[in-house]
Amino acid sequence: MKKKIKKVNAAILIIGNEILSGRTQDKNTLFISNWLNLKCGITVDEVRIIPDKEKTIVENILHLSKKFNYVFTTGGIGPTHDDITAQSISKAFKVKYEHHKEAYMILEKYYGKKKFNDGRKKMAKMPKGSKLIYNPSSAAPGFMIKNVLSLPGVPSILDSMIENCKRYLIKGSKVHSKTINLFTVESNISKQLGLIHKKYKHFVDIGSYPFFRLGKIGVAIVMRSNSLSKIKKVNKELIKLIEKKKISVLNI
Amino acid sequence: MKKKIKKVNAAILIIGNEILSGRTQDKNTLFISNWLNLKCGITVDEVRIIPDKEKTIVENILHLSKKFNYVFTTGGIGPTHDDITAQSISKAFKVKYEHHKEAYMILEKYYGKKKFNDGRKKMAKMPKGSKLIYNPSSAAPGFMIKNVLSLPGVPSILDSMIENCKRYLIKGSKVHSKTINLFTVESNISKQLGLIHKKYKHFVDIGSYPFFRLGKIGVAIVMRSNSLSKIKKVNKELIKLIEKKKISVLNI
Repeated sequence: MKKKIKKVNAAILIIGNEILSGRTQDKNTLFISNWLNLKCGITVDEVRIIPDKEKTIVENILHLSKKFNYVFTTGGIGPTHDDITAQSISKAFKVKYEHHKEAYMILEKYYGKKKFNDGRKKMAKMPKGSKLIYNPSSAAPGFMIKNVLSLPGVPSILDSMIENCKRYLIKGSKVHSKTINLFTVESNISKQLGLIHKKYKHFVDIGSYPFFRLGKIGVAIVMRSNSLSKIKKVNKELIKLIEKKKISVLNI
Repeated sequence: MKKKIKKVNAAILIIGNEILSGRTQDKNTLFISNWLNLKCGITVDEVRIIPDKEKTIVENILHLSKKFNYVFTTGGIGPTHDDITAQSISKAFKVKYEHHKEAYMILEKYYGKKKFNDGRKKMAKMPKGSKLIYNPSSAAPGFMIKNVLSLPGVPSILDSMIENCKRYLIKGSKVHSKTINLFTVESNISKQLGLIHKKYKHFVDIGSYPFFRLGKIGVAIVMRSNSLSKIKKVNKELIKLIEKKKISVLNI
């Protein structure tokens, strides 16, 4: 029996002037993409990095949530004036921006009544009807509304919360991948690689990426597919090509 | 005499499945953003990461080139089948995709006539009417067509080429920035910071970013503006706030 391939995709929307200005290196794209791929069989098909501007957030949420199965946002859910993700998403979906009862209780308990000031109370405000994404490291929860999941921007906190997104996601078929690292230059194999690509392009994505390692120039050939048997076929053809061209191999 | 503030903006379009899949950490956004900010007074207002798909590249090129003063693309200009940036941009702008005479000569000289194979010749193909962006590290040039500048994806090569983009860019007003690092939590200052933001929001972007350093939790307050004097005013107000709240300071 053939397994049915179910493609589920996502976009990531990184919200934050600090990434655009070059002050901060984004690490969340890599982490979320890998997690979605490996744990959920979900592929990330687009990433956007945008500033903390309400109009821009609203436009992007509306566009991406229509186009992809899921949208993950990072950043802008803290206590300060530049944290406007939750109210912008409320506006996009035309729902109230209000205190979420359970989030309010979680935060009140975490800080204690006396220290639960306005800034901290703001972190309990989210689009009406949101489901919570629990936060084991600093209490303030993320939220999911429609197909949009909002997480904080600080990587260590985001990383600790990601498993709590799982319950809300439909799993896709696992994407398998195999990499071969060769000591050659791309242009030495580009023609033959192009032919293999042509033959398998509906089944296997073949990527070619130059690298510099151990003082030598090389190429990583990456095969990605929902079908392990198709990857094996491409792999066989690549091994033939390597032998024919007498290319030395770093790992296979 | 008041200096006229000239705002020039850009978008970055990262083209590559390897970034979306989480295989490779994008480093080009940080590098290009910093360079544009510091050397050209150009702010990056949006970044998109998209797959190596012609239709997607065409749509994004058309959209972003209309919306921003410049678009920088990275990736997809090598010799292999998955390098389709140049032909996709040609398609977007409805110009021929053909060998650029000078690029062809540069590459032929670099590789020697005998080793100048089809893969390498492909790297001389670009949208008709392109201007070259010279490449001091591996010869294959990038190109500029209309307001789109196309660079390779390998960071070390991109970095070596970036200065050669300068001749094609109109400079904007320098964006000044100042950062204060405080040992406090965001919610302790969010209210007052919000008031300062409200007062200066048309002149100074104020960002607030939590950090963990020396075993302590802190907040970096980042001020960004074309006006140095306005930054100084915000800075004064922040110092007042710090003194009033008796917040210890990492650096100011």
